[in-house]
Amino acid sequence: MRILGIDPGLRNLGWGVIEAQGSRLSHVANGILHSEGADLARRLLSLHEQLTDILHRYAPETAAVEHTFVNKDGAGTLKLGQARAIALLVPAQFGIAVGEYAPNAVKKTVVGVGHAQKGQVDHMVRMQLPGADIAGPDAADALAVAICHAYQGAASTRLEQAVRRASA
Amino acid sequence: MRILGIDPGLRNLGWGVIEAQGSRLSHVANGILHSEGADLARRLLSLHEQLTDILHRYAPETAAVEHTFVNKDGAGTLKLGQARAIALLVPAQFGIAVGEYAPNAVKKTVVGVGHAQKGQVDHMVRMQLPGADIAGPDAADALAVAICHAYQGAASTRLEQAVRRASA
Repeated sequence: MRILGIDPGLRNLGWGVIEAQGSRLSHVANGILHSEGADLARRLLSLHEQLTDILHRYAPETAAVEHTFVNKDGAGTLKLGQARAIALLVPAQFGIAVGEYAPNAVKKTVVGVGHAQKGQVDHMVRMQLPGADIAGPDAADALAVAICHAYQGAASTRLEQAVRRASA
Repeated sequence: MRILGIDPGLRNLGWGVIEAQGSRLSHVANGILHSEGADLARRLLSLHEQLTDILHRYAPETAAVEHTFVNKDGAGTLKLGQARAIALLVPAQFGIAVGEYAPNAVKKTVVGVGHAQKGQVDHMVRMQLPGADIAGPDAADALAVAICHAYQGAASTRLEQAVRRASA
């Protein structure tokens, strides 16, 4: 199963694609998109076009987006919401399901604790995807979301199988 | 000049199309889009498809979006940001410019004061677009944004003409 993880941001949108076969993970690609344009509409269009290109190029079967943390800065939250809309819209336009994970859920799955430091996530992503050339912290976060989705998906598949066996 | 005004919201997205010839305005169409879908990604996709259909159907030459008010409710701000991203993205995908106006600027242009009551905006929109059958308050707000854009556009055109005459 090929998984696209996205860490949404208007200035820097991190993305990462991994291949998951059960609990075996491998790195496919990652990067950071930068929005360009004189106004917000054109910056959102730029992100939309670039992310659409990623979906065409890597053809993921499922996607996962980090559920943006709502902070006290209203203007910052609004910008995050706008970038997140693009991150959710583009996979939906390709007809693929989009999982959403809170940052703490991602950290707990990838590092083992919900309040891990940023450096720890980066470290564990590199451990689990050896050889990956990671474009930056936002790309590492996106790969972490993809890894979280792989484990959660595998866990729910195991649960479904257990339920089916129990009820068979 | 055909103008599309949008009042963005995730649950109810108001839209209105007017025709402006100088200061002469006429109503073309208005309505309210409702997002449908089991999750946020599909709701955004639903809004995107419906708004794309409006652009195809009415072929506006310019668009204007109300600049969402940032309130203290982080979750609400995030949702507004997501709906606003769709409102800005779709016109940009059609290659048309998108103006953004703060609610107070819209009220000041349409009613004459920045802190007008909601009912006053609705009243003035009906006065300026006689015969328009308005779908609801969100559609009235969208038509108000379009009217604001018409006057601001006309004002800047008059200013440009004055500057050209002065420098000729």
